[in-house]
Amino acid sequence: MTSTWHQTNFRVPYKDTDRMGVVHHGNYITWFENARTECMRHYGITYSEMERTGFLLPVLDVNVTYKKSAQYDDCIAVFTKAASFSPVRLEFAYEARKITDEEFMNNNGGRAEAAEPFGKLLAKGTTMHMWVNSEWKPARIDKGAPEVYAILQNLK
Amino acid sequence: MTSTWHQTNFRVPYKDTDRMGVVHHGNYITWFENARTECMRHYGITYSEMERTGFLLPVLDVNVTYKKSAQYDDCIAVFTKAASFSPVRLEFAYEARKITDEEFMNNNGGRAEAAEPFGKLLAKGTTMHMWVNSEWKPARIDKGAPEVYAILQNLK
Amino acid sequence: MTSTWHQTNFRVPYKDTDRMGVVHHGNYITWFENARTECMRHYGITYSEMERTGFLLPVLDVNVTYKKSAQYDDCIAVFTKAASFSPVRLEFAYEARKITDEEFMNNNGGRAEAAEPFGKLLAKGTTMHMWVNSEWKPARIDKGAPEVYAILQNLK
Amino acid sequence: MTSTWHQTNFRVPYKDTDRMGVVHHGNYITWFENARTECMRHYGITYSEMERTGFLLPVLDVNVTYKKSAQYDDCIAVFTKAASFSPVRLEFAYEARKITDEEFMNNNGGRAEAAEPFGKLLAKGTTMHMWVNSEWKPARIDKGAPEVYAILQNLK
Repeated sequence: MTSTWHQTNFRVPYKDTDRMGVVHHGNYITWFENARTECMRHYGITYSEMERTGFLLPVLDVNVTYKKSAQYDDCIAVFTKAASFSPVRLEFAYEARKITDEEFMNNNGGRAEAAEPFGKLLAKGTTMHMWVNSEWKPARIDKGAPEVYAILQNLK
Repeated sequence: MTSTWHQTNFRVPYKDTDRMGVVHHGNYITWFENARTECMRHYGITYSEMERTGFLLPVLDVNVTYKKSAQYDDCIAVFTKAASFSPVRLEFAYEARKITDEEFMNNNGGRAEAAEPFGKLLAKGTTMHMWVNSEWKPARIDKGAPEVYAILQNLK
Repeated sequence: MTSTWHQTNFRVPYKDTDRMGVVHHGNYITWFENARTECMRHYGITYSEMERTGFLLPVLDVNVTYKKSAQYDDCIAVFTKAASFSPVRLEFAYEARKITDEEFMNNNGGRAEAAEPFGKLLAKGTTMHMWVNSEWKPARIDKGAPEVYAILQNLK
Repeated sequence: MTSTWHQTNFRVPYKDTDRMGVVHHGNYITWFENARTECMRHYGITYSEMERTGFLLPVLDVNVTYKKSAQYDDCIAVFTKAASFSPVRLEFAYEARKITDEEFMNNNGGRAEAAEPFGKLLAKGTTMHMWVNSEWKPARIDKGAPEVYAILQNLK
């Protein structure tokens, strides 16, 4: 859907590693979650605010393919974009990549968007979500939060 | 591949929940990992021993579909089976289900296998793995650990 | 307070290890939490039920001293006992110990209590808690849940 | 020892919360670990580099006192300082505080140090560490890594 990717940078925390000496595969799911939070925030949708107004965004499914490993203290960039959406569903695509110390310090010159992901590909994945209300029933975002739906529609 | 499922039971720990009041989706990946460890151990493959003799089993990809939520202290049964294998690859399928206190205490009468998964389906998923050696190069299990390969071949 | 220790056994999950090849120090806090849940359950206090009836037990402070490391798949026994209590406070003491495969399989002959902790000491710690109600105000357990307070008073 | 505190900022990730609607107490130990990594890096000691040259810094004990809760997406500042040191030991003190969105965006004007911690106190704690070599024997930093020891001696 969107062609531009959102980029969020961080260093691998010690606790994210396991005895294999690399990042435990399960942590990429959390990295993706943190990245979509920042991606949404960047485009004007604050997820904590959505929850406060009665909209939850649980995960329907997640797929991750692992290419290369990351190590403690590596500089990571997670590239995120909204891949598809409907009044009730929202799908994200992610690429977790290892970047250089230089690219990390530069932080894209302060810009949170990148035309194309760069760096060494570690893992790519997708998550599909459904909007629900506080009773966990499907919620139509075009009717219940039209300003949010407009943001999704206007993403390039 | 195998028709019989291995079953492992546990109660949902407090730390596995999140502010949505349910188990955080990322924790199912860890539940599946713990389950495949017990599944392999049950069939005679102790993964800690495999690592000690120089065989690692990193994850190539993971897919999880979420159906219903689990809550703190719920009785969970994760059903696992080896779905496919080759000299270098191994795939597992999982079903995480909520079971009753009675089914949990009974613990399948001490049997670790079930013909069919039972209980309320929470999430199902698969993981695909590759056997590698300590230099992270693909390792052929039929040649490097023939007794393990024989176990996989004999699974029913 | 109590002299008898409650014992709960488990194997170290892969995700609990870090690149140092041992259990990450932060995971002992979760081990202690899971252990006190089982300890309370054993003595007739189901914490999930307490929360459902409006009593929360947040942590006021935690102290852990680390002696020896644990490794992936090690058999662990966490010994727990209620160290002190009042109408509003509850304190637990813990010892996480590595036990043998034999001791793990034997599971104390099915008994959940031990006169003295046994095995190789990994870490010991304490947690102090306060009972609060759903508005996070201190709650007097002797008045609000007298049957629970009676259990605490009768612990030996 | 040092009077100046190092400051590191981040937002509370979703996975750090639990069903109580607040940050699970165990996550502060990880917050402190990430903070001391950045604190050391700021003063010229890169811990990943220390490990690569054969020095590990395992935790001997940890103490945390919890004052107030943090919620999902809150802006957090963890203030860290080296509290004491010797040729073999190193102790850190921490304060995790909730700061305003404004303070978070301002990020101390880019400065990583603060004369005094500010914000709403969530939790304070200490960790005591011992330097060990790759055989897990105590390592004297004044002899084995004198440039690192000099940094510790010169901290104000």
